[in-house]
Amino acid sequence: MKKIDGGVTAPKGFKASSAAAGIKYQNRMDMAMIYAEVPCHAAGTFTTNIVKAAPVKWDQDIVYNHDGARAVIVNSGIANACTGEEGFSICQKTAAAAAKALDIPPDSVLVASTGVIGMQIPMDRLEGGIEKLSSALADGREAAASAAKAIMTTDTLPKETAYTFTLGGREVTIAGMCKGSGMIHPNMCTMLGFITTDACISKEMLQKALSETIVDTFNMVSVDGDTSTNDTVLLLSSALAGNPEITEAGEDYETFKAALTAVATDLSKKIAGDGEGATALFEVRIIGAESKAQAVTLAKSVITSSLVKAAIYGHDANWGRILCAMGYSGATFDPEKVDLYFESAAGKLKIIENGISTGYSEEEATRILSEDAVTAIADVKMGDKSATAWGCDLTYDYVKINADYRS
Amino acid sequence: MKKIDGGVTAPKGFKASSAAAGIKYQNRMDMAMIYAEVPCHAAGTFTTNIVKAAPVKWDQDIVYNHDGARAVIVNSGIANACTGEEGFSICQKTAAAAAKALDIPPDSVLVASTGVIGMQIPMDRLEGGIEKLSSALADGREAAASAAKAIMTTDTLPKETAYTFTLGGREVTIAGMCKGSGMIHPNMCTMLGFITTDACISKEMLQKALSETIVDTFNMVSVDGDTSTNDTVLLLSSALAGNPEITEAGEDYETFKAALTAVATDLSKKIAGDGEGATALFEVRIIGAESKAQAVTLAKSVITSSLVKAAIYGHDANWGRILCAMGYSGATFDPEKVDLYFESAAGKLKIIENGISTGYSEEEATRILSEDAVTAIADVKMGDKSATAWGCDLTYDYVKINADYRS
Repeated sequence: MKKIDGGVTAPKGFKASSAAAGIKYQNRMDMAMIYAEVPCHAAGTFTTNIVKAAPVKWDQDIVYNHDGARAVIVNSGIANACTGEEGFSICQKTAAAAAKALDIPPDSVLVASTGVIGMQIPMDRLEGGIEKLSSALADGREAAASAAKAIMTTDTLPKETAYTFTLGGREVTIAGMCKGSGMIHPNMCTMLGFITTDACISKEMLQKALSETIVDTFNMVSVDGDTSTNDTVLLLSSALAGNPEITEAGEDYETFKAALTAVATDLSKKIAGDGEGATALFEVRIIGAESKAQAVTLAKSVITSSLVKAAIYGHDANWGRILCAMGYSGATFDPEKVDLYFESAAGKLKIIENGISTGYSEEEATRILSEDAVTAIADVKMGDKSATAWGCDLTYDYVKINADYRS
Repeated sequence: MKKIDGGVTAPKGFKASSAAAGIKYQNRMDMAMIYAEVPCHAAGTFTTNIVKAAPVKWDQDIVYNHDGARAVIVNSGIANACTGEEGFSICQKTAAAAAKALDIPPDSVLVASTGVIGMQIPMDRLEGGIEKLSSALADGREAAASAAKAIMTTDTLPKETAYTFTLGGREVTIAGMCKGSGMIHPNMCTMLGFITTDACISKEMLQKALSETIVDTFNMVSVDGDTSTNDTVLLLSSALAGNPEITEAGEDYETFKAALTAVATDLSKKIAGDGEGATALFEVRIIGAESKAQAVTLAKSVITSSLVKAAIYGHDANWGRILCAMGYSGATFDPEKVDLYFESAAGKLKIIENGISTGYSEEEATRILSEDAVTAIADVKMGDKSATAWGCDLTYDYVKINADYRS
């Protein structure tokens, strides 16, 4: 498996484009399109929030009940969530407009929105955007990069990744882009993520691979503990790599899943490191757990603790808050057996052993915690299971961004 | 029931004192004592965090297995949490020192600590403090007020309340003090709270009243979602009011519980409004719920949402975040039936009806949300159950306080 410089247009059969449609703000790229030259299998995972945005409901129907996806239309600025029947009809009209412009069936069009909750998207602008997107489609590196930029909201960086690998003697490519910076605490799914591949794989195995992968990747990210109404990850396969079709579990499936996991992990870490206001990517690794579920519960409790996140911002080795967050997680363990380490590019330091301070150097700890990616590793010494979660520090800027996001 | 100006010395039989013992900082009042002239029944509720501070373990033994409490010794500065066997022996030595100074049995002494996790309390300073506290005991208003001040950490205001009421023709008094500003998300219990009463009530009914009351009071407070290692509420009854002993459920028990609920509600709101960095007390009321459990789940999910809290700080009627937090709470409801109101001293405004914006005036909403106590009321229209939770806004100062609390 090889990491390459590329985005959603890297796999064979995909084009992309972006446009400034004036959805909420003028003169800002706020729409993106991914277009497949051939009908694709589509897999999807969606928010578990009871309050589901209209595009989530639309996509669930398309992914679960239809086949042959051809396009994804994304807008930023307005989330089309809590918009009632009018909101859902906007999804239908979007698909109809894209179908007409691209000469494809309406039920081959997936849609996704991100932005403010509760506002209706102005349909005329959306239609104008679709016109622009359709005529701007291109298959180069630049087209993918511009699409990744157009789906940003409070993101400070576009988020893309791509890999090539071999299946049945054929070179296969998989690539993805995503957005996500606030309201990030995916549950079963996440933010907006779009992954394309030219691997040949059945629809059933494609969905299986995506569902299995998100558990260890997107679902382990938290910026602020708020599970969004719009979380969506879509995975499209064009089958143009020409590898023997993957129709069951086995070596090829595992190879494909490893590549998908690499893409999803890259994107997850990019989201966490670019969390609203963040100055550092914060990784929490639980090792020596009795079960995977226990490791996940502990890691997620630490990654979402406001007090731990504020301490990371202050470069403060405040290990008591980490142990405290593990303690209220709901998972059972013996606090008097826990070892804790901090690690970064600046080194690794054992902070507590069997629940008590090792008498470590605070200066050394602060040096390690001053890097822009830091890891806390807790060993609960109960078994050999582990889990990793990704988040970020809690800063003044998170508060600033969210105290007046709508204005 | 009548609210009076008073603290823990208001009920008959209680004295209090405070002292500067230099536990962590010099020249700061950091120890407090509550002393009962007669043996009291004691009830207690404690943190559900697996990581329990040594004083929690000590008090659980005293409350569950002993009777005749005479004193409570509290220190701020160091939490005596994650301190191993040495930490527990400090509780034993504290009880022994207080027992000697006050000529009471060691198993009649309760202890409580709050402050930094992971440091050992210097025993010589603690013993010096106990000497000072024992000789400074007094029964007036001033003694209670000074004790309430001495238990503060990042609190900006001392927190006290007191009520009188009548039981069996006798005037009964109940009063309390508490501290709590960060690491506040009580579960089954909370922060440090000390309530005294001269009501005559059996130990069993005292515990029952406390356990029932905290469910709707302290357990409905959240500043930052972090359940502390030290949460403790102690309730001592001297029986000196001379009312007929309450030994079973009935009218007198309900009267007592109503007064206890008033004390606990006052203290809970004081804690929420004085949350670290807070500029506003934020109250969330869920009405029309199918069950109490559903109402509690929904209210707690909204009160702990970082995005909702940041919006309250920005005086922004960002109702989508409230609906979103209800949606990921785990409770089931129909988002398209929800009505939402904002209310404060400046008025009440319906923001959404059946899940969609009412087209309310943003200016009017901002005016209502600019008060220092604001309420969001969500009606889920499924039944007649309700719940109220208390929290605060999320501000720059919360981050500032917690990015360098240890230094």
